[in-house]
Amino acid sequence: MPEPSPSESSPNACVLVIGNEVLSGRTQDANVKFLATRLGELGIPLREVRIIPDIAETIVGTVNEVRARFTYVFTTGGIGPTHDDITSECIAAAFGVPWEPHPEAWALLEARYPPGGFNAARQRMATMPRGARLIANPVSVAPGFQIGNVYVMAGVPQVMRAMFETLAPQLAGGPPVISRAVHVAGVPEGTLAEGLGAIQAKRPAVEIGSYPFYRPAGNGVAVVAKGTDETAAEEAIAEVSELMRTLGGEPVAGEPPP
Amino acid sequence: MPEPSPSESSPNACVLVIGNEVLSGRTQDANVKFLATRLGELGIPLREVRIIPDIAETIVGTVNEVRARFTYVFTTGGIGPTHDDITSECIAAAFGVPWEPHPEAWALLEARYPPGGFNAARQRMATMPRGARLIANPVSVAPGFQIGNVYVMAGVPQVMRAMFETLAPQLAGGPPVISRAVHVAGVPEGTLAEGLGAIQAKRPAVEIGSYPFYRPAGNGVAVVAKGTDETAAEEAIAEVSELMRTLGGEPVAGEPPP
Repeated sequence: MPEPSPSESSPNACVLVIGNEVLSGRTQDANVKFLATRLGELGIPLREVRIIPDIAETIVGTVNEVRARFTYVFTTGGIGPTHDDITSECIAAAFGVPWEPHPEAWALLEARYPPGGFNAARQRMATMPRGARLIANPVSVAPGFQIGNVYVMAGVPQVMRAMFETLAPQLAGGPPVISRAVHVAGVPEGTLAEGLGAIQAKRPAVEIGSYPFYRPAGNGVAVVAKGTDETAAEEAIAEVSELMRTLGGEPVAGEPPP
Repeated sequence: MPEPSPSESSPNACVLVIGNEVLSGRTQDANVKFLATRLGELGIPLREVRIIPDIAETIVGTVNEVRARFTYVFTTGGIGPTHDDITSECIAAAFGVPWEPHPEAWALLEARYPPGGFNAARQRMATMPRGARLIANPVSVAPGFQIGNVYVMAGVPQVMRAMFETLAPQLAGGPPVISRAVHVAGVPEGTLAEGLGAIQAKRPAVEIGSYPFYRPAGNGVAVVAKGTDETAAEEAIAEVSELMRTLGGEPVAGEPPP
């Protein structure tokens, strides 16, 4: 089902958040963190996110750019029944295929509403790019769809998550990304930096990130090591912990409490 | 100070969130909503957001793409002292200028630390693209900077917000974007859609968005009208309220309670 882009040997992903409501500040996006986490677990690292408005030209251009560059593209938002829901027709335009009633989606939605309720607006939710395969919606019936390497999902978080979980078993991932963390209070990032850079330099297989935190319980720095090699991530964190001790800190395994 | 891009007569903005921690799902972005809201208030609508990793080639390429397309580009993240903080040197590369000690930033940071504390890692925070103008950091001293139409800010929300507020008076905006809302319970979006589309069609100066909500207190639909013409936004919402009544609902002014 997935059609990996030829440009990458190990799979990766891009997420497009489609919707004026995020760009206007009305809505706090709640989908990126979920997708980033789940895709990492599936061994499909998320490499880029774009948040774009409900403007046809922008959606078509962006979809065509990113579907050529990433193995998987996941879109959220813009597949409801109202005039500002234009994702589906834009995906058809991006692929250069007709946007037409999808028999399976049509039957699902027609059965959902009382007689006369499956009106023109709702029929738009059953109109899809030719060749689309449905993504089931266990929450509110109206399905998403997949065409090529583009997976079109709802913007409402509960619905998007349910759609993603129906998809997940079909996605071909690489080895999952393992993450290990340690944190310390009382050792500033600028004091850790040199030793941390040296550990990163000798461990290119692990990606080491340094994140200061500011909490009522006290400030500090969290260091995260990520990669597909669990042992290497754990060894890196052991070295970072030793570095923290050398600098007078008391390392604590894991991320700091929220 | 601002250098509006020649491509647009009314100003707009793009935000680049730079950081693996958002793409891995470790961190929930908390900057986009703030910037989207504040930029809208300043009459500089946010048109696109990209979340990109700490990879030099990606940062340089993305900065050069978006600074040509948008009036203002705001970046968050990657200006700390550690090896994974590479935003500043990448901005220099994007502009094709040397990355060198910035005398003013150097003096600020040197004064902040005890003798010997302004180490090589911290000196990186005072190293900037030639020609950069500082953005004050009232929270933790280490400044951001502006070069051309690109504004480089910290990723830590408290620091980013403080930096943005020092900048805001310098930004040349258009008329502020006004937003009016109404919500209703018990009228599904698919029932509202046709009338809503008709209202949008006859009011091209207002952008009308429809957002279903799911709350413990009950589900419904919120409709938001936005634009620079307050009267037009209010008239649109009055018409939408009347539509809701016609369909048997009881419209309530404003957004639904959280």
